[in-house]
This record gives sequence, structure tokens and C-alpha cells, in this order.
Amino acid sequence: MPTLHQFIDESITGAVTEPVKLSEPVPVEQLPTPALIIDLNLFDQNLTKMHHFLDPRGIGLRCHTKMHKCPVIAHKQMAAGAVGVCTATVSEAEIMQVSGIADILITSAVVTPEKIDRVLKLARTNPKLQIVVDNIEVANRFNEAASESNLELGVLIDLDPGMGRTGIEAGGPALVLARHLANECNNLRFDGLQMYAGDCMHLEGFENRREKYTGVMEKGAETKSLLEEAGIEVAFFTGGGTGTFNIEPDVGLMTDLQAGSYAFMDIEYREIGGEGSDRFDTFEPSLFVLVTTISKPQQRLITVDAGFKSFASDKMVPEFRDVEGVIYHWGGDEHGIIQLTNPSKEISLGDKLAMLVPHCDPTVNLYDYYYPVRDGKVEELWPIAARGRSQ
Amino acid sequence: MPTLHQFIDESITGAVTEPVKLSEPVPVEQLPTPALIIDLNLFDQNLTKMHHFLDPRGIGLRCHTKMHKCPVIAHKQMAAGAVGVCTATVSEAEIMQVSGIADILITSAVVTPEKIDRVLKLARTNPKLQIVVDNIEVANRFNEAASESNLELGVLIDLDPGMGRTGIEAGGPALVLARHLANECNNLRFDGLQMYAGDCMHLEGFENRREKYTGVMEKGAETKSLLEEAGIEVAFFTGGGTGTFNIEPDVGLMTDLQAGSYAFMDIEYREIGGEGSDRFDTFEPSLFVLVTTISKPQQRLITVDAGFKSFASDKMVPEFRDVEGVIYHWGGDEHGIIQLTNPSKEISLGDKLAMLVPHCDPTVNLYDYYYPVRDGKVEELWPIAARGRSQ
Repeated sequence: MPTLHQFIDESITGAVTEPVKLSEPVPVEQLPTPALIIDLNLFDQNLTKMHHFLDPRGIGLRCHTKMHKCPVIAHKQMAAGAVGVCTATVSEAEIMQVSGIADILITSAVVTPEKIDRVLKLARTNPKLQIVVDNIEVANRFNEAASESNLELGVLIDLDPGMGRTGIEAGGPALVLARHLANECNNLRFDGLQMYAGDCMHLEGFENRREKYTGVMEKGAETKSLLEEAGIEVAFFTGGGTGTFNIEPDVGLMTDLQAGSYAFMDIEYREIGGEGSDRFDTFEPSLFVLVTTISKPQQRLITVDAGFKSFASDKMVPEFRDVEGVIYHWGGDEHGIIQLTNPSKEISLGDKLAMLVPHCDPTVNLYDYYYPVRDGKVEELWPIAARGRSQ
Repeated sequence: MPTLHQFIDESITGAVTEPVKLSEPVPVEQLPTPALIIDLNLFDQNLTKMHHFLDPRGIGLRCHTKMHKCPVIAHKQMAAGAVGVCTATVSEAEIMQVSGIADILITSAVVTPEKIDRVLKLARTNPKLQIVVDNIEVANRFNEAASESNLELGVLIDLDPGMGRTGIEAGGPALVLARHLANECNNLRFDGLQMYAGDCMHLEGFENRREKYTGVMEKGAETKSLLEEAGIEVAFFTGGGTGTFNIEPDVGLMTDLQAGSYAFMDIEYREIGGEGSDRFDTFEPSLFVLVTTISKPQQRLITVDAGFKSFASDKMVPEFRDVEGVIYHWGGDEHGIIQLTNPSKEISLGDKLAMLVPHCDPTVNLYDYYYPVRDGKVEELWPIAARGRSQ
């Protein structure tokens, strides 16, 4: 019988982090639905487009793997030129590290003894691991643990952009914490600042978004100057995301952009609008849920096999990729009811149809693997090895 | 390299369906959060209460495992007296069957060739497996497949209670389908009717719920009479749920109640009201998510490590089990922001707190295992072996 920690350790070392190759290609219309599918051509284009934009502007991509939770994709992003990855949780970091990625930043605060232990366990074999702190007492706990393990841990200060979610107040309080790290925490190495303005990512309208985001980030710039004037080097400044990727160069603050959704996109991001466009279409949706119509109880309705357990329901409803003039209504945990208002093509019982996802991150978290599709066929599965690893 | 079907088969036979016993008990406050915990005393009470009510009234409990997705719990329910289980999907049925349960009804329509194959594969070793159909063409497909496999498959007709989600129209259309099954489908055995009025389960106010549900079920009773007058035996009538468990005896139609939530309960069910009570409290919440406070960016706010990836967001927000005077706000995929309006107890950084779940089914689907708790300790894990099996 294992202890709880042995059980968790075995679930990490036993995780399948590489593609599962199939002996026979499967036509997409034979997949058991609901199935999470990736259009590989569009996915590849999205990765390329992001680097074409960021690389010449000297901004590194530290892609956020909380979005896809998949080491196969993280390795593709690193191969495409990413400087490293972010994870939201310790357990995501464990999966990324066991898959062979070292440049990992855990972007959310870790405060409890059992998780500090797990971070230190990772750091013992990975000197590149970085964490964020937003509190002196927690910094002391990490310093003590790092000292006991006789190692140095890279730390960024998380600044609150005014969202009131995580982060220390910019300016004076951040300087106090930075001084504390520099002077009192011998086993913590101050690497820089994180300021993620999550509430700006989905502001509608490019100019509106640019204006508000630029205003919010002024506090970040001031804090950086304050630290540098106090003789504290700020090697990294990280934050931002898909919604601000083309605003960051003008802000001029980010060394590492934490974009995630750019690889898959979703309806929520599409709707925010792009530069000179009602739709944010620099990156195209490459992620879909394949659903099947399973019942037709009434003339103008047809029911699909995907509800709250197949699409995250925190945002709008899903949309079909190739059918217009229909409306999806949530039909419970396992069902969606399609209202056939004025369908652009006939939908019959047993049809399989691709749907755009409202919000990619929590939708991905409902599936065990992706089916990557090229030329209508699936040749391998990509395990979502960090799915459910919210700890 | 496996084929896709070999890969899926291996995931079924490899599923852990028994409790994972730990070598050392873990105090609940040492669990890595977010953690899905069960209060075992309340859980046991809920199981007992349901049978104390149903058994003397001659209604069988065919518990719906789509709610908990856990063979360990399904076996406890069978041991407590359930007559069988329901599953919403073929892949849930595969997990329940591999765990050793035979009395399985798949409650949602199956229409595509690859899933019909999988149903037949289950039926080959399990003559008790039952499915539902709501369409003549699909019935023919099943009959043909059963004929090719040289076996008899138990079938119920799914009646639309007027929701427009699944099911054939009650009355005449159902009779046509029943006659077709009886006369044209030699390899299908007509076992009875299913009519699940999902839209009645959460009607607020007991009297309101009773009145509306009783009205809706009249169509079910008429259809049953119609079939019996035509000489077609209706051995089973199944449907209903936690919201109607104490209405069914007066309706007098159900042989098998499809309740699921009664074992765990959730905020959504609590709010519908019970018989003579504002709250539906016959069954008590036994399922909680343990969360940790990880950041305190502002005076009247504290942030917990659980958002859209730890609570299903299709309904209301989560609530604390033991703290009042605070409001949870969704803080994104990994965070909840607690507004400390007038907290009934102090909440500090690093505290672990239990939260009631808004809607149990899709919340459970976010986790890999339960931590059952008795006397503040966890001695084993219960794998949620059918989690993510929405296919």
C-alpha cells in the first residue's frame, strides 16, 4: 500500500506524456464522440504566427500550459521557439518536468507545507524552475525549505494589476518584498516581476483594450523602476497573454509573454475583436469538439451528445464550425439541444459535427486526450496528461 | 501500436475500479487542494434514507452513476439495496460492467455504428444490459447488430416528457415504435418505458413540483395503458430522480427510480425546497471541495485555489460549509475570490476550507478520485474511474 505522496508520485511518473501512435489511421467521422479534435494545419499556423510577431520584437514566448495541459503540445511550442512554459499549478509543473521540460514558471501562489515540499522536490533536479510569491511570510517559508534542501530557488514577485485576485500591491509594498527577498532570503534568487492583467485580456475592441491595458501596466513599469533605483535587478518581466500579444511591444515591459489560447483560440477570444476587425482573427480556432446528433424529439429541434461535461459552461454557448442558422441550448450534463431556426445545411440523426468551444482552458480539462486531425484522419492521440491536475 | 479500439479497450480493462488503500491515514487538512472530499457519515445516511423511503413503497432504486462516475460508490449503492444502475453513456457502462455490475441501463440514445458495436460487445457477456431507443431506424440498426451477434438485447422506449431533449412522443408514436419492436425486431426484447422529466427535478417548492410533475407524467401513464391495451407488456417504467423521489409513490408509475444526486446533494437541489421546508434537506450535502486560501491582495478579499476547473459553473456559485457572511466570486479557471463581507470566522492565508458544490454531476467530472473522510482522516481513495467518459 502506498502513502498518499507515493500514490501521487506514481501518478506523475506513470503519466503518458508522449503521443500514442495508432496502428491504423482513423477517419474523423469514426471517432467516438464527444471528441476533442485539433485541426493540425490551423494549429501549426497559430504557433508560427505568434513567433513571426514576437521574435523580431525581442519578446520571448513563455507559453501557458494551463490552457492545453499537454506535454506533446508544450514540446511543439518549445520546438517552435518558446523560451519556456508557465503552469498554473504545482501538479501541472510536475507533469511538464517529467516530460523533459525544464524552463517552468509556476504562475500562481503556493503557500501550504505539502505543496512547498513538492516544489522543492522539483527544484532539486531542476535549477531552472521558478515560482512567484506575493507575501513576505510565504517567501520565508520557501526560503527556509530551500535552505534545508541546500539549493537556490528562482522567485518572481507577483504584482496585483488591480484585479484583487493575486499579487502584492505595486509600488512600495512590492519594493519592501523585493528588498526582503534580496536581503533576508539567501536561498531565494530574485528573478523579476510578474504582472498578469487577466481582466484586460478579453476587453472588447482593440483600441479600448490597448488603452486600458497600457494604463494598467504603468504601475508595473513604475515598480520596475523603483526596484532598479534601489539597486535590485529585474531580469524578467512576465505576464500578458493572447489578448495583449500585439500591445506588449508598445508597452515595452514584457520579456516573456504568457500566452496560451493563441494555439487553439475559442469563441470568447474571437469576439473581443482584433486590430481593425470586429473579430480577433490573427489566430484561427484550431480546437473543436466533435459531437453526434442522437435524438430528434421535435420537428425544429435535434439533440447532440455534448453538454456541461463536454463544454465548459462559464462563458457563451458553443457554435457549429460549418452550420449557420442554428442555436445551441444547454440540454444538461450530457446533451445540447439544437434549435433548427434556419439551418444552412441539413442535419440528420447520427451526423457528426464540429463545434467551436466557448472557452478553451476549462473545456480541455474535461478530456483525456486530443485527436489531432490532418486530411480528415487521426494517426495518433495526444494525452492531456495534466488534465485534472488543479492542485 | 494499438488500433483506436484496442487503445480504448485497454483503458477500460486497466481502469482502477476498487478503492486505493493508503498505508497511512491522512488528516484532511494535509490534503493537496482542490480536493474532492466525501463526508462518509452523511453519505451513508443518504443511502440509508433513500431505501427507508423507497423499499416499503415497492419502488426500486436504479441509481444513476452518471452523477458519481465511481464503481466503488456504485457497489456501495448495490449493497445498500439498489436494483441496478443507470449510465448516461456507453463508456460509463463499460466501466461499471468491468467493475462487476451487471444490472445496467444506458439511459441516453446510442445511434452510431461504432457505439452500437461497443454496446453489443458489452451485451455479449452481460445479458442484463439494457438500452433505450426513441427511433425506429435506430431500433433496426440495433436489431441487426444483435442478430449478427446472435443475442437478445433488452430495450426500453424513451418517451419525451415534453422537454424536447430526447425521447419519442408519448401516445401513438410510442405505440408504433413498441409494436415495431415487438413484431419486427426479433433480437430486441421490449422491457418497458423510460420517461425522465429532467426539467421537473429542480422546480422550486414541493407542491409546485408535485403538481407539475404529476401532470407531465399523465402522458407516461396513458402511453403505458395504450401499450398494455395493445397486448404489449410494460415490465419496467423508469425515470424520476432525487427531486421527485417522494412524489413517485402518488404518481404510481415508476418501478425503478433513477436518482443520483441523493447520495451527495448540492446547492442546486438544496434550494428547490422540500416537503414543508424552504430547503430540500431530506438528504444532506456529503460532497465538498476542499480549497486553500492562497493570496490576500486586498483588505476585504482573499483568494482560493478553485475556479472553473474545480467547480462546474453551469449553476450558482459555491458556498462555504462552515463560514457565513462571505461571497464567492469566480476568479477564473484556477481561482475564486472571496469577498469578506461579514465573515463568521477569521480566514487566514493557507487555511483549508470545505465548500459545497453548486451542481454535483459536472463537478465530480473534474476530479480523478474522491477522498472519503471519517473522523477527520482519509484512509483510502475512491477512483472516479468513469470521469471524462462522456462517449
